[in-house]
Amino acid sequence: MLRVPTTGIDLPNLVADTEQEILRLVGDRDASTAGLYAMLRYHLGLDGREGVAGKRMRPLLGLLAYASIAGDHRAALPGAAAVELGHNFSLVHDDIEDGDVERRHRPTLWKLHGIPQAINAGDTLFTLSRIALHRLTDLGFSDSRVLRLMRLYDETCLALCEGQYLDIWASGRSEPMTEALYFDMIGRKTAALIAASVEAGALLATEDEHVIARYRGFGWALGLAFQLNDDLLGIWGEERATGKEPSDLARHKMTLPVIYAYEHGSSADRSVLERLWATQAPGEGEVRDAVALLERLGARDHTRSQARRYRDEALAELDAAGVVEPEARLALEEVIVSVIRA
Amino acid sequence: MLRVPTTGIDLPNLVADTEQEILRLVGDRDASTAGLYAMLRYHLGLDGREGVAGKRMRPLLGLLAYASIAGDHRAALPGAAAVELGHNFSLVHDDIEDGDVERRHRPTLWKLHGIPQAINAGDTLFTLSRIALHRLTDLGFSDSRVLRLMRLYDETCLALCEGQYLDIWASGRSEPMTEALYFDMIGRKTAALIAASVEAGALLATEDEHVIARYRGFGWALGLAFQLNDDLLGIWGEERATGKEPSDLARHKMTLPVIYAYEHGSSADRSVLERLWATQAPGEGEVRDAVALLERLGARDHTRSQARRYRDEALAELDAAGVVEPEARLALEEVIVSVIRA
Repeated sequence: MLRVPTTGIDLPNLVADTEQEILRLVGDRDASTAGLYAMLRYHLGLDGREGVAGKRMRPLLGLLAYASIAGDHRAALPGAAAVELGHNFSLVHDDIEDGDVERRHRPTLWKLHGIPQAINAGDTLFTLSRIALHRLTDLGFSDSRVLRLMRLYDETCLALCEGQYLDIWASGRSEPMTEALYFDMIGRKTAALIAASVEAGALLATEDEHVIARYRGFGWALGLAFQLNDDLLGIWGEERATGKEPSDLARHKMTLPVIYAYEHGSSADRSVLERLWATQAPGEGEVRDAVALLERLGARDHTRSQARRYRDEALAELDAAGVVEPEARLALEEVIVSVIRA
Repeated sequence: MLRVPTTGIDLPNLVADTEQEILRLVGDRDASTAGLYAMLRYHLGLDGREGVAGKRMRPLLGLLAYASIAGDHRAALPGAAAVELGHNFSLVHDDIEDGDVERRHRPTLWKLHGIPQAINAGDTLFTLSRIALHRLTDLGFSDSRVLRLMRLYDETCLALCEGQYLDIWASGRSEPMTEALYFDMIGRKTAALIAASVEAGALLATEDEHVIARYRGFGWALGLAFQLNDDLLGIWGEERATGKEPSDLARHKMTLPVIYAYEHGSSADRSVLERLWATQAPGEGEVRDAVALLERLGARDHTRSQARRYRDEALAELDAAGVVEPEARLALEEVIVSVIRA
């Protein structure tokens, strides 16, 4: 597929506009609650420090989906803000649920302010993600469009919670989940919000149900590809392979390569993985042996081929939508390539 | 004020209808997530056990507000379900934040299933509270009414989170908050949702802005009265006075009587309260001494007069609304009397 390095659409500009839209919502409201909003800006990487923000992938995809049909991205900014705030609500709660003490090289919110304030800060982000959407009315979208978007968003958040339930449930069991259940889980936990982000962009831009459905399909497949790519990076990514960051294997994170190896390995292979999982802080050698095992059993190849399959499916859905403005199309591919590197 | 013991409106019937509306939302959706919905039904007291449900005060107030203008309550059921689900989301998270191990004589969700699942179950209830509102569209309410209700609900949830922030923040300080800040906090944490519940009932029933504003005023004052009444019951209620349940003083719960005594006592009086607060599990004698101190300083009388003032203000707002159907008016008073007993 032909790619050019830069497009007419300025991605950093889209990120800056999204952050402005979010800052309207997380600015101080009154003196007594200033501490709460400061926590939110800290978590969002909007506290004036450099290099502490996320990639804003979800809002970017939504804005590009909108711009690819409507030409300009700005009217879709409330939707982009909602998706980013919703994603960050789930990160704040995930960090507590997983006991993670760092995110983007800074202490997590619960580590800094305690679990009670962090739970509540997550709830606040969740609430603000909903409030963000009301500005669509001020921008001239019809009530029925706004309501449809809200319904999409609410159903998506439910899927998110269901996926998170499955994730926590599975982490408490001694056996890994099946590959089928894993896809069920990442569908709800990861793909649903990415699909909704893209679908939201489309449904603000057009009333053509065929186009909206194709964009949703694009987002869904992209979401799965993104997660599988993340699974690969968590084990074979440069920072993990060089030990700069702990491997997902050392952190006992259940991902497709492990599930595949467990399903397809011999009982001796399973024992290797079970021992690794039972070891509190596994050493470099144990992790290296497990990586070799995964490779021998074809777990890396399988995951890579699944990731590529969904990425190709995503691009095919985009082609089938058939209305894409060329510059936005290039920008979408740029985002896809930047997040899917495995 | 004249009261008759029963009215033409059957409150248990309203509660049953509300629970049916909620059960539509928390029934099982698919096999893999059945455990999540079972948790929700358990917390809501909808798991088939007797005597484990809350009083459903908030939905009752909303339904009665609606019925007092529109005559029948049924079209307002989605709003009632939303408010009850929203209230329960906050209870699930509060129980974690406060470390409470029991609610309505059963283990709290986090105690049974761990903090990660309980945080996520609360998030799910929050999401479902929003999904509940979409059924208003199916019942024939206009998009603009539904959107207005959602905006009210979202702004209310934000106030709730802000109030909770203040509560957690204050509990980590060595000095009690001021009376002014206390009213700021309970306004957001308690009165806002009760006011919204009543306002929602009114705004589904009428487009008369004067009436809607009066109902909101009624709900707001009632919410404050309710909280102050709760403060009194937490120290002087029968179960606390007889030791059947731990006094709020033993649990170090910061309420208006304590704040008033601290603000108006001598430095010796303050020391008594500070010692009580510094004692992990205070004995009966220490609690009894503190109760006597609060009474001597007029803290009980002050709280009681504030509670009555807001209750009377609530009823005056209801009178000023001027459109109330007599049966619904009597039922509203019945609810008020049943929750405000101090």
